[in-house]
Amino acid sequence: MAIRFDLHSTDPAGGARLGLLHTPHGAVPTPLFAPVGTQATVKTMTPRDLHTLGAGLILANTYHLFLRPGAELVQRMGGLHGFMRWDGPILTDSGGYQVFSLAHMRKLDADGVTFRSHIDGSLQRFTPESVMDTEQKLGADIAMCLDECPNPLDRAANERALERTHAWATRCQVAHTRPDQALFGIVQGGIFPDLRAESARYLTGLGFPGYAVGGLAVGETKAQMIDTLALTCPLLPVDKPRYLMGVGAPEDILEAVAQGIDLFDCVLPTRIARNGALLTHAGRLNIRNAQHTASPLPIEEGCACYTCQHFSRAYLRHLFKAGETLGLHLATLHNLHFMLRLMEQIRAAIAAGTFLAFKEQFLAGYQMSDQDARARNRQARQEALALL
Amino acid sequence: MAIRFDLHSTDPAGGARLGLLHTPHGAVPTPLFAPVGTQATVKTMTPRDLHTLGAGLILANTYHLFLRPGAELVQRMGGLHGFMRWDGPILTDSGGYQVFSLAHMRKLDADGVTFRSHIDGSLQRFTPESVMDTEQKLGADIAMCLDECPNPLDRAANERALERTHAWATRCQVAHTRPDQALFGIVQGGIFPDLRAESARYLTGLGFPGYAVGGLAVGETKAQMIDTLALTCPLLPVDKPRYLMGVGAPEDILEAVAQGIDLFDCVLPTRIARNGALLTHAGRLNIRNAQHTASPLPIEEGCACYTCQHFSRAYLRHLFKAGETLGLHLATLHNLHFMLRLMEQIRAAIAAGTFLAFKEQFLAGYQMSDQDARARNRQARQEALALL
Repeated sequence: MAIRFDLHSTDPAGGARLGLLHTPHGAVPTPLFAPVGTQATVKTMTPRDLHTLGAGLILANTYHLFLRPGAELVQRMGGLHGFMRWDGPILTDSGGYQVFSLAHMRKLDADGVTFRSHIDGSLQRFTPESVMDTEQKLGADIAMCLDECPNPLDRAANERALERTHAWATRCQVAHTRPDQALFGIVQGGIFPDLRAESARYLTGLGFPGYAVGGLAVGETKAQMIDTLALTCPLLPVDKPRYLMGVGAPEDILEAVAQGIDLFDCVLPTRIARNGALLTHAGRLNIRNAQHTASPLPIEEGCACYTCQHFSRAYLRHLFKAGETLGLHLATLHNLHFMLRLMEQIRAAIAAGTFLAFKEQFLAGYQMSDQDARARNRQARQEALALL
Repeated sequence: MAIRFDLHSTDPAGGARLGLLHTPHGAVPTPLFAPVGTQATVKTMTPRDLHTLGAGLILANTYHLFLRPGAELVQRMGGLHGFMRWDGPILTDSGGYQVFSLAHMRKLDADGVTFRSHIDGSLQRFTPESVMDTEQKLGADIAMCLDECPNPLDRAANERALERTHAWATRCQVAHTRPDQALFGIVQGGIFPDLRAESARYLTGLGFPGYAVGGLAVGETKAQMIDTLALTCPLLPVDKPRYLMGVGAPEDILEAVAQGIDLFDCVLPTRIARNGALLTHAGRLNIRNAQHTASPLPIEEGCACYTCQHFSRAYLRHLFKAGETLGLHLATLHNLHFMLRLMEQIRAAIAAGTFLAFKEQFLAGYQMSDQDARARNRQARQEALALL
C-alpha cells in the first residue's frame, strides 16, 4: 500500500475531519492545502522556500509535464522528486481537466482524447493507459485517474460523461501497477445528486485508496458546490482521504472542510499573488493600488511570513510597478504562508472541537462576497487556462 | 568620516591590494565585487539570499530610483537600507552613465543635463546639486559624483568633458553634506594618459575618501583598459579605495586587481544569468543548449552554491525553456556565488602572496578569448541600456 490514511477525529458538531496521510515521502496532516507546481516548480519558489513555509503535499500537472520536458526525461532524472528536488509528497493530476478545457482543440472518443499541444500545435493523445504510463513515469506519491470533465450544470453532458469516466477509471486501475504510488478515483456527476450517488457507488466499488470530488468550482454557485459535497462525502469510505480538486479560495476551503474534505489544491493563491492580490484576514489587498504608495505597513500586521517581517507595502508596490520578479516571489511567499497557516488553524480548531466557531469568525472578518470570490476564482482559473 | 579604508597589504610581485573597507553598515574585505540592484533589488534575490551568498557591498542606480519610486519616497521609508531591507553597505552611482547613454534624449549644458524619462517620456534634469540631493536622500554608504561619460576613444570629446566633470566634482563636493555618506570622485580622460593624469591630479587635489576610474569597458580594447589602469592607479592616493565602475567579467577583474583596483560592480553576472549563461571555471555555459537536455550534472562539479548542490542541468534547462522565473533565480544565485567566490579566492591568493600565479591559472582554464569576452561585456551593457 503506497499510502495510509489515519483518521484521528471528526468534529462532533459537523463533518470536519482531522487526519494524517502517510506517503512514501513522509506523512502530512489533513485538512491540507497543496500548492501547485504546474511545470515541476511552484512558481518563484525553491524547495527550501517551500520547506521553510511548511508545505507538505504539492501538486504537479501531468498535461504540462507530458508535453515538456516529457515523462521519459523526468523518469531518467529520478522522477519528479529527483527532477525538481522536492523530497516531500507529490500528487499529479491526470491532465484531463486541461485537455477538456481546450474545447476547440480536442476530439473525444470512447478510447481516449486527441488534442493539440499548446506549445507547438502537435497532435497528441491521452488514453487511460497512456496517462497511467505517464503518471507512473513521473512517479508522484499519488496519481489521479483520467476522467471527463463536463460543465457541472449540464445534465445530459454529465450523464454521457459519467459512463466514460467510470469505464476509464476501471481501465486506469488495471493499467496502474506501480506499488509505491497510490491511484485515486474521481467522482463526477456535476450538481446532480443521483449522478453523484451513482458515481460514488461505482468508484467505491472499485476500491481506490482515496477519492476526489471532481468537476466543481467551474461554474456552479457556492451553494450548489456545498450541496454537492454534502451529498457526496457521506457516500465515500470514512477511512479514505477525500480530495476536492481545484479549490483554494479560503472561504471555499472552510466550507468544504465542514463537509469532510481532507485535501485541496489550487493555483489561486500563487496565481493571484503574481497579479499583486495578497491574502489577508480582511480579504484581498491589491498591492498595485495607489493607496499603498507610501505605506510603511506590512501586508498584514502580525503575519509571521518573511515578506511581512521585512518589507513594507510601499516596497512591494514598487517591485510590482517596476516589473521586478522579486515582487512575484515575495507575494507568492506571503499568500502560501497565509494558506498554510489557515490550514494549521483549521486543524488546531478541529482538534480543539472549535472548528465551526473558527469558521464563522474567519468568514465574518473576511470581506469578500460569495459571488465576488467565486467570480474571481473562476476568472483565475480561466486566466490560467488562457496561458495554456 | 563616513568610511575608513585599511590597506592591509600589496602583492610584492604586482599591484594587487588587500584591504578592509569600513562603512556605516559594516566592514567589507577588498578586492570586492558589488552585485547590482538597479531598482533597489538585485534581480530575483532576497536580502537573505544575498547574505547567504556572502555579498558585501551592493550597488543601486540613482537614475532608475530617481524616476521610480522617487528619492523622497525612499527617504521616507528609511533610505535605501530601510526600503529594500539590505543592512549591509550600499553604493549609488550618480545616474550620469545612464543619462549620457540616452544619446538622442538628452541635452547637455554647463549647469547640468536635461533628459527624458524612459518610463513616461517626461522631461527631467540633473545638476550636480540635484544629484547630490537625490543621493543623500537615497542614503547609501557611498555616493558618486555626477560626471560626463564620453566615448573613451574620442580625444576631443574627452578634453571638453574633463573640464565639465571637474567643475561638477567641485560642485558635488560643496553640495554634499551628509556626514554618514562618503562621496567618491570619478577620474575620467578616456584612454589618453595626459588627460587621465590631469583628472587624477585635479580630483585628488579636492580630496575625496575614494576614487573611481570611470569611462572604461565601454568600447576600448582590453589592452587599452589595462594600460589606462596601469597609468591611473599610481596617481591615486595609496590609502583610498579605488573603484573600477561597470567591470565584472572575471578575466577583466583579475587584470584590474593586478593594477591595484579594490572595488568592482557590474550587471554582467546577473544579467547573463537571466539569459541562461552560467559562469564556470572553464568559461560560460549556455543552459539552453540542447546538449544539456538530459544532463544529470550540476552547472559545475564541486560548486558549493545551492543551485549546483541541488539541481541538474536538465532541470535548469527545463525551467528556462518553460519560462519559469525559478530558472532566473537559480542561475543568478549560481553566477553571484561564482563571482563572490572568485573574489574570496583572489583575496586569499593576495594574502598568500600567490595572486599572479592564481590569476594565470584561472585565465589558462577560462576558455574565453579577450575579444569574445569584451564583445559580450559590451553587448550585455548595451542590452541593459536598451532596457532603459
